[in-house]
Amino acid sequence: MQKYFIPKESLESKIIDNSDAFHIIKVMRNRIGDQILVSDNDKTYLAEITSLENNKVSFKIVHEEAGINELPVFVTIFQGYPKGDKFEEIIKHSTELGASNFYGVMMKRSIVKIDEKKKDAKIERFNKICKEASEQSLRYKMSYVSDILPLKKIDFSQYNKKIICYEESAKENESSNFKNIISSLNKGDNVAVLIGPEGGIDQEEINYLISKGFIPCGLGPRILRTETASMYVLSAISYEMELK
Amino acid sequence: MQKYFIPKESLESKIIDNSDAFHIIKVMRNRIGDQILVSDNDKTYLAEITSLENNKVSFKIVHEEAGINELPVFVTIFQGYPKGDKFEEIIKHSTELGASNFYGVMMKRSIVKIDEKKKDAKIERFNKICKEASEQSLRYKMSYVSDILPLKKIDFSQYNKKIICYEESAKENESSNFKNIISSLNKGDNVAVLIGPEGGIDQEEINYLISKGFIPCGLGPRILRTETASMYVLSAISYEMELK
Repeated sequence: MQKYFIPKESLESKIIDNSDAFHIIKVMRNRIGDQILVSDNDKTYLAEITSLENNKVSFKIVHEEAGINELPVFVTIFQGYPKGDKFEEIIKHSTELGASNFYGVMMKRSIVKIDEKKKDAKIERFNKICKEASEQSLRYKMSYVSDILPLKKIDFSQYNKKIICYEESAKENESSNFKNIISSLNKGDNVAVLIGPEGGIDQEEINYLISKGFIPCGLGPRILRTETASMYVLSAISYEMELK
Repeated sequence: MQKYFIPKESLESKIIDNSDAFHIIKVMRNRIGDQILVSDNDKTYLAEITSLENNKVSFKIVHEEAGINELPVFVTIFQGYPKGDKFEEIIKHSTELGASNFYGVMMKRSIVKIDEKKKDAKIERFNKICKEASEQSLRYKMSYVSDILPLKKIDFSQYNKKIICYEESAKENESSNFKNIISSLNKGDNVAVLIGPEGGIDQEEINYLISKGFIPCGLGPRILRTETASMYVLSAISYEMELK
């Protein structure tokens, strides 16, 4: 069943009249009586469509949905800003795998430069991808992109567990830091995961991150692409905390 | 450092004269004295380039490389054949994460049909992607695509652990089968991982697979896209077996 994250006012008025209405009417071709899931990003409800006109969908609530499927920890992915459409790919897959939110991080070896004037539009577009991926994977909460910032402008103080995915650690067969951290996570922890861009992380940046409480971790003996690292981390957290 | 999987004869003659030579000369712009890694898919060697002409690279062996970075188990991904270029994406990322080989599986809900006449060319192209991904992630062994076959034509008898990634299990909060299997893997096990296409797995197919010794497993409480499931499985196996 398709899920829609809708504004609080929409949930109150029981009317959807934005691009989601277009999706319901034109893409999904729903009819009166069909059921959808709606959420104001707080609670999720099973809803039944009661009318469809031009670009306006009315619904009534059937009941609140019980299941919460969020990871037991909040994971923020700090992604060294990559080339091409990799950031979109990372957002999409990491949202499925339970990430809470994302920062694009401008690092020494980031090749792409972000035009400050276009940044807001970029972030808005990324947040659309977050919304769609959250809906498709029936996330209880919507993931989001917080900002795109230079490394040194990010405040890491709110995170109580801080991981650097570090290729050099992998090459040196460092294979215990990651599991130590993940296996000792507690429900509600705020986890920061920093991943370098394609060219990796500069030694000076590593030193800076360590001074901020980050721990360099190897993710196994193979070299992972920048867009694969967050999936490894999130899968491992799910495996460790959600499976019995 | 760039790695090249080369034919056994190439390793004996110390001459590379296929498309890898083009890559060394034109893409990487290597010069005499530069070092590369070469492997005949058995052992890996550090090599030094001794001459470069038109499309021919000569090298000498410096020494054999010691590190083996293969997963301690052999994982075959049986991927319900998906739409678009998702199979390529799955091969690429799963190779990084340590998969041994792949089958494309034609299942009831596979939308794409494979033209038998074009199958061999398709498999050849997929195997090029395997080679490149294996080289990029410095895999010790090259991954490969074995075949594209209808489900019922596949012989699963050589696998001693068989997993179905099953969305319905996830929805029913089944959360122990996967961890039970992964945490009891032994070095050298042959693991079959079956993942449905976008539309999921038909109940009749599930029954058939169960009769072949497969166990349906939920991969956590969120709905994963078909192209994300293998990454979850391989990351979890690495986390369980390769990290301490």
